[in-house]
Amino acid sequence: MPYVIGVDVGGTKIAGAIVAAQGTTSPPCTVPTPSREGSEAVVSTLASLINQLRRDAERTGHTIDAVGIGSAGVIDSSRGVVVSATDSIRGWTGTQLTTEVTRRTGLQSTAINDVHAHALGESWLGAGSGADTVLFIGMGTGVGGGYVLQGQCLQGATFTAGHVGHYAAPLAYDHGVPLPCSCGGAGHVEAIASGPAILSAYQRLGGDIARDTRAVYRLAAQGDLLAAKALDRGAIAAGQAIGGLANIFDPHVVVVGGGLAGAGPLWWDAMEQAARTELLHPLAALPILPARLGETAAIRGAARRALELTTSTERHHVHS
Amino acid sequence: MPYVIGVDVGGTKIAGAIVAAQGTTSPPCTVPTPSREGSEAVVSTLASLINQLRRDAERTGHTIDAVGIGSAGVIDSSRGVVVSATDSIRGWTGTQLTTEVTRRTGLQSTAINDVHAHALGESWLGAGSGADTVLFIGMGTGVGGGYVLQGQCLQGATFTAGHVGHYAAPLAYDHGVPLPCSCGGAGHVEAIASGPAILSAYQRLGGDIARDTRAVYRLAAQGDLLAAKALDRGAIAAGQAIGGLANIFDPHVVVVGGGLAGAGPLWWDAMEQAARTELLHPLAALPILPARLGETAAIRGAARRALELTTSTERHHVHS
Repeated sequence: MPYVIGVDVGGTKIAGAIVAAQGTTSPPCTVPTPSREGSEAVVSTLASLINQLRRDAERTGHTIDAVGIGSAGVIDSSRGVVVSATDSIRGWTGTQLTTEVTRRTGLQSTAINDVHAHALGESWLGAGSGADTVLFIGMGTGVGGGYVLQGQCLQGATFTAGHVGHYAAPLAYDHGVPLPCSCGGAGHVEAIASGPAILSAYQRLGGDIARDTRAVYRLAAQGDLLAAKALDRGAIAAGQAIGGLANIFDPHVVVVGGGLAGAGPLWWDAMEQAARTELLHPLAALPILPARLGETAAIRGAARRALELTTSTERHHVHS
Repeated sequence: MPYVIGVDVGGTKIAGAIVAAQGTTSPPCTVPTPSREGSEAVVSTLASLINQLRRDAERTGHTIDAVGIGSAGVIDSSRGVVVSATDSIRGWTGTQLTTEVTRRTGLQSTAINDVHAHALGESWLGAGSGADTVLFIGMGTGVGGGYVLQGQCLQGATFTAGHVGHYAAPLAYDHGVPLPCSCGGAGHVEAIASGPAILSAYQRLGGDIARDTRAVYRLAAQGDLLAAKALDRGAIAAGQAIGGLANIFDPHVVVVGGGLAGAGPLWWDAMEQAARTELLHPLAALPILPARLGETAAIRGAARRALELTTSTERHHVHS
């Protein structure tokens, strides 16, 4: 039975685990991402983590057959290359992710965008398990998503599919002026519904107690009106987007993950109510579920693709 | 070589044509839809048109192998049943479309939503021809769409996929109040960007010369400020939606059809500029093209599915 390694490469940390064919994982190992040191240093840290996990596996008698990588940035999943990325990892654009990992570990590897990996993980083993199609929405520092059809996450013509945060949102305006968005545009869902956007909204309203989104949530739960208003606005914007997306994709299930989805009922209930208000009649029974796998979702989703690699290789061996 | 009949069933007319395997069609025949007389009368009119087209084909020595139907309403394309519909055709919900057509014509048949058929037609033989994935957006009396992947239009869990008009839109507000939408909701793209919505916006602005959307367009082209403002608002709302959808689907090409797409440069240019403003950087070169097939798009898209039926039947015969 094949064992693989799944890794999740983000701007602040790299997490990895050993994943078995049925999806069980070892407890994840985490190391800080040397983001400021550039691509070479990050790939080197990544390869060390993989080799470490591989030795752990071998100590318990398991052979590792492949590596699956979920990574920040737009990833060409057919070639394993970082097509573009923000500066959360310096010089990440252009990194030959799978080539470099294979060169340094000797293991075949495959790479995909981290949100896509997250979507694959939740649809394989999490809240979307067993559903034919899953729309995954991640609501946290950013707003992203992935549509999973027959076990594959929609990649798009330029591997950019799933950027659900960059759609015009009625609430992403301040006194008629569209709020700036991380993409360089303005007035998008992410500009009002992400965690940082909720903190900004709180500050625009004149709030000066909370220093981060968690604190805004805590204050809102304690009855602070400014915090409650900012949180509500973000949650409603998220719900409007999720409901509208459901009308477009008509998935069997919507899975909502990311920090905000796990923040508590104050956010979730406002989001779900706003989403259900948007739904067309045939979608009335649509399940909208919180993600279940937490930080192992992207690791397992990436690992799933590595497992497919081992299967297709075996199939190839049979045929050749 | 197989010949099939493609039909497009709408609330005001039924159009049909003979379609050859490579997609060439006879000139379409059109009959009024007896919408007020109910489902039975509509199916009967539909069957007569099909039998007429079949006799035409036989007169020129061609045998018809199957019928492909594109129809208004949410269509269960696996069973050929109208799952739900507006009252544009009385009693249309529940109609066993393919069963009834086959019973009355003796021909095997397949049915799909008319906008999905439109998307299939344009991606097969129109502006999306040759592209791996096509996002089709229809902008007219309503706002709808279809995403075509590997020659198949995404159906969704309840056959409702592609309802791109029912997503919250920043411009679908009048003095802070969301505009009512045809779906029963409010504040959606369709409520500001459809043809009737443009006429309503013109009237809300105080315009009282134009009696239909065409007249609004004509007035706008002549420099009428109220008409220009209403048209611009609708075109920008359409463009914001189309750009946002492109960020989500990342298709190889976007095809825009429907009455507004063919209205002229005043609408198209404002729409395209608004759409391109929304696009993420990797999508900068995305082609946004006007539909090319006009009224034969849905006929040919429906016919395409009928041709697949004949192919799969042949394959079945070979195997059994």
